[in-house]
Formats: sequence, C-alpha cells, structure tokens
Amino acid sequence: MNIPDSSLTRIVIIGAGFGGLKLARYLNKKDNQVVLIDKNNYHTFQPLLYQVATAGLEPDSIAHAIRTLFKNEKNFHFRIADVETIDTAKNTIHTNIGDLSFDKLIVATGSTTNFYGNEEIERNAMSMKTIPEALDLRSLILQNLEKALLTDDLKERKELMNFVIVGGGPTGVELAGALGELKNHVLHNDYPDLDIRIMNVHLVQSGDRLLPGFSDKASAKAEKYLRDMDVHLWLNTRVLNYDGQFVDTNVKDLYANTLIWAAGVKGDLIYGFPKDAIVDNRLKVNQFNQVEGFEHIFAIGDVACMVSEEYPHGHPMVAQPAIQQGLRLAKNLNNLSRSKPMKEFKYSDKGAMATIGRNKAVADLGKYSFSGWFAWMIWIFVHLVSLVGFRNKMVALVNWVTQYFSYNKSVRLIIRPYHGKAKEQPVMKDVEPEN
Amino acid sequence: MNIPDSSLTRIVIIGAGFGGLKLARYLNKKDNQVVLIDKNNYHTFQPLLYQVATAGLEPDSIAHAIRTLFKNEKNFHFRIADVETIDTAKNTIHTNIGDLSFDKLIVATGSTTNFYGNEEIERNAMSMKTIPEALDLRSLILQNLEKALLTDDLKERKELMNFVIVGGGPTGVELAGALGELKNHVLHNDYPDLDIRIMNVHLVQSGDRLLPGFSDKASAKAEKYLRDMDVHLWLNTRVLNYDGQFVDTNVKDLYANTLIWAAGVKGDLIYGFPKDAIVDNRLKVNQFNQVEGFEHIFAIGDVACMVSEEYPHGHPMVAQPAIQQGLRLAKNLNNLSRSKPMKEFKYSDKGAMATIGRNKAVADLGKYSFSGWFAWMIWIFVHLVSLVGFRNKMVALVNWVTQYFSYNKSVRLIIRPYHGKAKEQPVMKDVEPEN
Repeated sequence: MNIPDSSLTRIVIIGAGFGGLKLARYLNKKDNQVVLIDKNNYHTFQPLLYQVATAGLEPDSIAHAIRTLFKNEKNFHFRIADVETIDTAKNTIHTNIGDLSFDKLIVATGSTTNFYGNEEIERNAMSMKTIPEALDLRSLILQNLEKALLTDDLKERKELMNFVIVGGGPTGVELAGALGELKNHVLHNDYPDLDIRIMNVHLVQSGDRLLPGFSDKASAKAEKYLRDMDVHLWLNTRVLNYDGQFVDTNVKDLYANTLIWAAGVKGDLIYGFPKDAIVDNRLKVNQFNQVEGFEHIFAIGDVACMVSEEYPHGHPMVAQPAIQQGLRLAKNLNNLSRSKPMKEFKYSDKGAMATIGRNKAVADLGKYSFSGWFAWMIWIFVHLVSLVGFRNKMVALVNWVTQYFSYNKSVRLIIRPYHGKAKEQPVMKDVEPEN
Repeated sequence: MNIPDSSLTRIVIIGAGFGGLKLARYLNKKDNQVVLIDKNNYHTFQPLLYQVATAGLEPDSIAHAIRTLFKNEKNFHFRIADVETIDTAKNTIHTNIGDLSFDKLIVATGSTTNFYGNEEIERNAMSMKTIPEALDLRSLILQNLEKALLTDDLKERKELMNFVIVGGGPTGVELAGALGELKNHVLHNDYPDLDIRIMNVHLVQSGDRLLPGFSDKASAKAEKYLRDMDVHLWLNTRVLNYDGQFVDTNVKDLYANTLIWAAGVKGDLIYGFPKDAIVDNRLKVNQFNQVEGFEHIFAIGDVACMVSEEYPHGHPMVAQPAIQQGLRLAKNLNNLSRSKPMKEFKYSDKGAMATIGRNKAVADLGKYSFSGWFAWMIWIFVHLVSLVGFRNKMVALVNWVTQYFSYNKSVRLIIRPYHGKAKEQPVMKDVEPEN
C-alpha cells in the first residue's frame, strides 16, 4: 500500500466516520504512525443524508475532504481503499490496493442497511446510507414526478407518486417529514399540470409508536406533526415483501414505485474475524474497545458491541457513541504509548433529536422534552456546530435560511438520472464469520 | 408528449440555456402556449463549469431547477426530453418521450465540444460542457493524485500528475489558472507524502497568443499570470493526436494521463433541417433569427449563425449573444401575436472577462482593459449577479469568500469515481444535414 516504513508503532484505522475521524485527529502522531483508510476521500455527515435526498441540501455540504482535516500532519497517511479481509494471525489487512501490516488496528467501519435477509426487498428498495444513495433517491423522486406527467394511466401515475418509507426511527420520520413538506409547499408550484394531491407519503412502522428510542411525549408529537402534514402512518405494520411495485404488508396493501428502506442497520464487518468475536453482526468489545480475543485490535462505533448493564445489546448505532468511543480510545492509546493505563469507556447520553419540518422538531435532552420551534432551533444549532468545516456550516446555513423564508427546497436537480439499483450498487452479502 | 391542446399559438423552445431560458421567461403566455424542452431539469451556468471541475464550487450552485423559475405560470409546460429529429414539413418534432407539433419552433440547443473529427482524441480526452462532465473531471484529477501516491514508478507518477489543457480561450485559461492554484496552494498540504512539484499543468494553444478574442493587453497579462503560476504555455502548438497517454503535437511531445479538450465548440444541431439551412454546423438565421427557408422556425444563441458586416462568421458562441437574442426574439414574438412588426436584432458587445486566480483577472470593457484585483472584483460581481437564484448566489459567495481567506478549494470530493468515458457518454456524431 506504499506506506513508508517507520520505527514507530503503526496504528491503522479503518473507516473515517464519526468515530474513526475523531480517533485519528486525537491520536498522538509523535509516538505513532497513523494510517487512516476509507472507501471514499470524504467524511459523510450521515444524519443529514435525508436532506440531500429531498433536495434541501447539496451533497457537497455534508461531505468533507478527509485530507484537508489532516493537512501537513507528520506520521499520518490517508488511503482510499476497500478493506477485504483481515489476517489476525499475521496482523495484516488485505485491501484492493495491497496489503498492510499493523501493530494496532481499529475497526471503525460503521454500519450498512439491514434488510434482514430479504433479498427481494434489497433488490427493489432504495436505501440511504451513502451520498450516492441519497443522490439516487433525489433523482428518482424527481424522475417519478416527471414520468407521472407523461402518463394518462391513473393507476401508473398514482404508483409513481406513492412514496413508502419503512422504519419509524429518526431517519424514517425525518424523511417522511421532508417529503411531506415537498408535497405541501414546493411541488404544486413546480407541477401545475399535475394534481399533486394524489401524491402520498406512507410511513410504515412495525412497533406501536414512532421514534422508539425517544420519550413518549416526543413520539406523540412527531406523530401529530406527520399527520398534520398528511403523511399516512401505518403503526404495528410490517413490510413482508416488495417487488418494485406491490408492497406486501400484514395490514394494508400498497402500490408504489418507490420504497425507501430505513428499517434498520447492521455492523459493516470485515471478513476474517473468529466466530467468538462476533455478536449480532457486530464485533464484541470490552470496556476498552478491545475486540474479544485480541489485545491490539479494537472496534468503535456502530460496528462495536460493548455490553453493559445499562446497554445489554450494546450502545445505539448513532453518532454519539462513535464520537465518544473514538475520543476515549485516542486517549487510551496515547496513554499506552507512554506506559500509562487505559480507562474504561463510559457513555454519556446527550439525548436525541429529530426534525419533521420547518419549526417542527422534537428533542429529548436529559429529563426534558422539547418540541416545536424551540426544539427546531436546537436541532439547527447542534447540526450547524457539528457539520465539519466552516464552508459546509455556511452553505447549510444559507440553505436553511433561504428555505425558512421561501418554503423552497432549491436543489431539485436530476444531475445523474437514476437507472435502477442493479447497475450501480452490488447487493451486499452478510458477512459470515470465519473460524 | 401529453401537452394539453389549446386554441393558442403553440411555441416550442428546445433548450433551456441562456437564450432559451430568457426567451421562455419573457414570452407572452396569454396569447401563446409555451413549451420548453431540455435534456435536463436544470439550467447550467456554463461559464463556471471550470470551478466545479477544480473543486472550487459545488455543482448544485451553478445549476438551477427550471420548473422553479416558472412556478404557477399558466400556459407554460416544461418537459425533459431528447429531441431527435424535426419534420419541417409536418411542423413536428420527434423526441424520446413522443412527438409534438408546433406553430412556432425555436432551436436554442447551444453547442457541444468540437473535436474537429478526431475520434481518437474524442475517445480519450475529457471535455467540460455539462455538469456531469465537470464532475467526472473533478473526480479524475483527484483520483490521479491518489493513484500517484500508490505507485513507485516515477514515469507513471509523472503521467498521472501531468494535466494538459488544449485551447487558449477563456475556458482553457481559467481552467489552467484554477489547476495552477490547486497545485500551488492546496495540494501540497493535502499530499505531504507526494512531491507536488512534479505536478505539471500544460496549456496548449494553436495561435500565437492566449484569449484571441480579447485585447492584446489582456492576452499578455493572462500569459504573465499563468507563467507566474508555473503553468507551461505552448503557443503556436497544435495537438495532433492523443491516445490516453501520449500527446502528439507539432512542437513538443508530452505524456499525460489527463488531457482536457477546450479547443472549440460547434452548434448542437437537430437532424432534419435542409442542407441550405446549415452553415458551419450552425443554423443560418436572418436578423429576426428566422432559420433560412422558414418563417416560423427560429434559432438563437450558439446554434444560430447570424451573419452581419461586423460578424461575418456569426456572433461569438458565448452567453451574451444568446441572452440578447432570446430577449429580442421574445419581444418580436410578442409583437407578432399582436400583429406588430418584428425588429432586427442588434448585438451589443458587453466585453469579455476571464479570471486566472485570486486577485488575478482580465476584463475588456468597451475601450478599457483592466487586470488584477479590480478586474477580479468585477468578475466576481458580474458572476454573482448573473447566477440564477438567490441561494446559488449566496452559496457561490460563501465559497469565494472562504477561498479568498483560506486559499482553499474545499469541495475536493470524489463522490462518484470516474471509470472512463466510454461507459457513460456515447461519442457524439456530427449531424449530417438531410435533403
């Protein structure tokens, strides 16, 4: 992989998401040679992907070039690569651009969409875990409306204008809200010769309430906001299959050209770990983020499952645990290199937020639950602060301010038309643990 | 094409570039049914494509959704379509989404890259006339640098880091300047383990000076700016062939992985026009923009060739003639529908500008020629004012201000890796006039 040899300890980090990035920034690069590997040359701010998909933000404002964040740092190397397997006996990883040995390895590969083994849904549904996926969805939504204009077949037109979202977590709720806003405030202006009232947004949730991780109050409020926006809610409803047109559920049959799968994620594992190290498609780690059976291999974020009394199934697969584990591990590894002891990771739950529309958000912060304008302002503030890079913050601010006053989502651009999933994205297989 | 029947005169406009868009906006939609057709759902601000290609602006800020510009207008219809042929006898156009008859037709299809018949160059060179092309170029430039990091073969590394631009007009000059800035101010920070000094930008121009349409003073200044930025200038040099690696010229042999062809454009014609109506791959029009031999078919902008004493080969193929012809034709058609006479088009030359880098621009305005900081401020002002849409202006401003202070071009993102030209873009054939 053409990384210079060095007498320092080589620490290899796979993945430049929230966790990997934090870790790479805080690792001591005097005592260690740090190699960061990612599939892309940019960090993706995943919580805002739904705004890219619904024409609220341009993709470039939620991406940040990784190299820029480490400019001129010594003993730091970044490479774009797909990591294929790990050889734990030889302390080596195999990638599409060659092999790399390590002294310490951190797996921070995050998660991918979980279709729970249903290959037909996987083939036909849209997902939204990467920027190209979000852009494909943006194109598809707009292409569907353009096609709806051209047909005289009412059934076909309805199917083109039916959008089914599966999963009532923050992603599903935020996406449903944004699509509802597009329908109510934007599209009827854009398509005066199309009866936008026949456009329907359906949100399907298997449980009996939306936002299961949130307070009851927040769930109820989110539900009210969505109903007010004419989003159809299907609680206690499971999607059993989807062939690209017919949505088979246990409650109601729907027909839609577009189904967006936001019903779950799973750890994005690397081949080569022993069976014992894997639980629920995540890597079993102790309180120091060491992978079961290894002292020098760590995992953080979505792909790590750290069981505690409070979190018997590991931490929620969201940004905060990844960020906090990245920071803790950086400190621990820095300690190790100076022969100081590591400290146990302790998760500090900072609360949860979801935005449904303009002035419509819910936020659970500690004991308090907010909604409406105030929660929305908190949401805007937190996301502006968290976006990586000054330019990105400013561009997002321009977009949000413009949209606030104009009710407009202006990046309704079909820059690369979407021609179907099969061509671009190979269907991912579950990773089978090796022995 | 599913356009509602109407008793009004149906005016069909093909192309939503500078000319078609101006025309569509100013046409009277009380007396006329206006149908606007474009291949994309957005208008492209072509003069800034080079900034997209060099990571200075995000693509979405130079694109504007066409529907938004006509929201709620009656008797206006927009369709995304590829117009394949025209049947002038039946007053009908054939498109990929069906046929459409017209009472009046305006061809505003603009221009495409002109490879002057050299198919090998066409297969191997990058061009920059559309947003996807500019994005491909952005990806390729960054991918080349990433690849250069991985190879130990110095010759291969040099070829990956050699960028040859063919054409010394505004596009070539601005692109060369932007690449020079990337090299001098940005990339050495990004790639500390790569010797960025071996990166070379070559600008090849067949004539004896850059910016042939500009004043001598502006040409000389642009030349000086580029030399100061270590861009290699090859004047009086013609590129004879390019196989993807070897650049065959009449003066100097170059080896480069990337050659960008900015050496010329040609009218983007539609099949079906008689031979007599075509000159130099453009449609011959009179002073009312009527295509030779037709009273009710018009052409404006790059695709129209209006010969006058001052412009014996037609107007320059840039934005201003298109905008002015679009406006004049709108007024003429509005006059016609009220039985008033049309007026002859008169071109008002507003001057020419090109920016080479931060504080480095040239501007010929009337008798005056400016350069340096002042010309650069004029350039920024004119482009901000001309960008379509408030959001786009603000986002461009944020980018330019950030870059001014940080010397940074922050959208260095490989969002969709470039895998070669053949897969995405079918090679365009010259249009043979039919009889």
